Amino acid sequence: MKIIIDGEIKDMPALWFQDDRIRFIDQRKLPYSLEFFDAITVEEAAYAIRNMVVRGAPAIGAAGAYGMALASITGMDINEAHQMLGATRPTAHDLFYAIDRLRDIIVKGEDPITASEEYARDIIERCRKIGENGAHLIPDGGNVLTHCNAGALATVDHGTALAPMRAAHNQGKDFFVYVDETRPRIQGRLTAWELTQENIPHRIIPDNAAGYFMKKGDVDIVITGADRITRNGDAANKIGTYEKAVLAKENGIPFYIAAPASTFDLKLPHGDGIEIEFRDEKEVTEFQGYPLFGSGEKALNPAFDVTPVEYIKGFITEYGVFAPENLEDFFSKFE
Amino acid sequence: MKIIIDGEIKDMPALWFQDDRIRFIDQRKLPYSLEFFDAITVEEAAYAIRNMVVRGAPAIGAAGAYGMALASITGMDINEAHQMLGATRPTAHDLFYAIDRLRDIIVKGEDPITASEEYARDIIERCRKIGENGAHLIPDGGNVLTHCNAGALATVDHGTALAPMRAAHNQGKDFFVYVDETRPRIQGRLTAWELTQENIPHRIIPDNAAGYFMKKGDVDIVITGADRITRNGDAANKIGTYEKAVLAKENGIPFYIAAPASTFDLKLPHGDGIEIEFRDEKEVTEFQGYPLFGSGEKALNPAFDVTPVEYIKGFITEYGVFAPENLEDFFSKFE
Repeated sequence: MKIIIDGEIKDMPALWFQDDRIRFIDQRKLPYSLEFFDAITVEEAAYAIRNMVVRGAPAIGAAGAYGMALASITGMDINEAHQMLGATRPTAHDLFYAIDRLRDIIVKGEDPITASEEYARDIIERCRKIGENGAHLIPDGGNVLTHCNAGALATVDHGTALAPMRAAHNQGKDFFVYVDETRPRIQGRLTAWELTQENIPHRIIPDNAAGYFMKKGDVDIVITGADRITRNGDAANKIGTYEKAVLAKENGIPFYIAAPASTFDLKLPHGDGIEIEFRDEKEVTEFQGYPLFGSGEKALNPAFDVTPVEYIKGFITEYGVFAPENLEDFFSKFE
Repeated sequence: MKIIIDGEIKDMPALWFQDDRIRFIDQRKLPYSLEFFDAITVEEAAYAIRNMVVRGAPAIGAAGAYGMALASITGMDINEAHQMLGATRPTAHDLFYAIDRLRDIIVKGEDPITASEEYARDIIERCRKIGENGAHLIPDGGNVLTHCNAGALATVDHGTALAPMRAAHNQGKDFFVYVDETRPRIQGRLTAWELTQENIPHRIIPDNAAGYFMKKGDVDIVITGADRITRNGDAANKIGTYEKAVLAKENGIPFYIAAPASTFDLKLPHGDGIEIEFRDEKEVTEFQGYPLFGSGEKALNPAFDVTPVEYIKGFITEYGVFAPENLEDFFSKFE
């Protein structure tokens, strides 16, 4: 992804492997400062995933793969590492896909560093194709709405939901992006930051205002990422996605999910089987340690929701754009 | 309203007139501290309304009435005062209803202090009746969801949306309230604070999570207030209300608006005619002066949205509960 540092344009992924360690852009610090977090043990990799140094399903997958490589370097038991990494966050499918794959590689005696680097390169390439395949959906002169951050930061590079926007922008298309702030973690700050680096026009809106702009006729398409998509097309994604999908349908606006094959959990028939992570209520009740509510007030903090497939117009994938009724064609490409 | 100060229960309205001044509970400071703001000039009253020392349509109405009384005390030109108070916030109907009424009273040579105190007492009584009329809608053992603060703070006393909850609680009903945090101004902090004073069980949720809990089947009824309701029943209320109303309908959950007659603007046939206030983008991009987004990031901050009447099951008023198709019966009680 493009990152402007002191006026100079650099190209950098969200995380990479170097000198026997995982180097992460610390997403907790963005956009206030560009800092890095290094993991040299599996414990540190697990910490980075759990505490959202890195977030976004495909990027968490890559972190899991690199984490398994660290297990091999540090001599940690592979099953223990698999268990530790798998216990960090329950909802994103890519994590389990990646650590299962790396365990197989290690068991087979193949080199896990090469394999995890290939895994990350593969994800980047899949995301690039998602951009290529989805760019035509973005209307020249139109307005896009997105929720959370499904950008390069969430996917190692390019992004899922943001990949078609990057590609359309590079094709010279002129469009505007409504960026949901995405409480409670305000991942809209990451999306706004990425769009600023790319010079794509955008404004942040409160999550509450998404419906207002949709009803006004100001939104032409909604694109989000996903953390886990079941066989029938139900999609778990950041809390609030379901709300925006219902509002899009109500207002006749096409709602797309952009995701690579690794996000699809083909063993689950539908979304009821997806475990929803509840996170610390302090993510809601405090901001930077400052209380937002009276002392003793408690909150409920589900981190994800499930959007039933009937609200989803299509899936933008590395193999093309698939309507829900054509998902089995998509699965046949890789299953 | 009940306010617990150092363990002692006090009874206090959101604003009142005393010693030639309006005394406001400063709602910008709650729930962190209970402070008061005094307005002794019309300018100060206008400041209090514009900067949300006081907010909520009926409470803004009372502040407008008291502000007109201040004009009379301070010898300010009545039309100038009317213009100054009317220019503070465009969306809430009660403000215009109240300042028009007080101007008539002053022109007739009647006492504006007595009239504005009567106005506030009348609002309190109407809200009490809203509670009485709506309490039966709250299911014993059930769950209510509300958006923004339509409590005693917003209405001088009792509340609109919170009035039926107060009444049901006083009848001994057992229920739970989901409190939308209501970004960007987080008025959920005021609702949570009021419910805590009343000892009504509740939890704060991110606005993004309202749909999650509705879809899960955990919400039995949604009740909000309104800032302006048009003749056909379209209702302007705090940004995000439209989203929650659409989600309620989609999930088969009854959505009610609680409001007194003064909130109904019978001259407007439908909601397209309602002016939507856009507020300072810093309400979105900063929290207590701390930036939530990268420097230079811009936001859009519509303060209200309009919920079309087809999403509204009924209106809880001081004259009873009216389905949209029976609104003319309601209007005949006071028009």
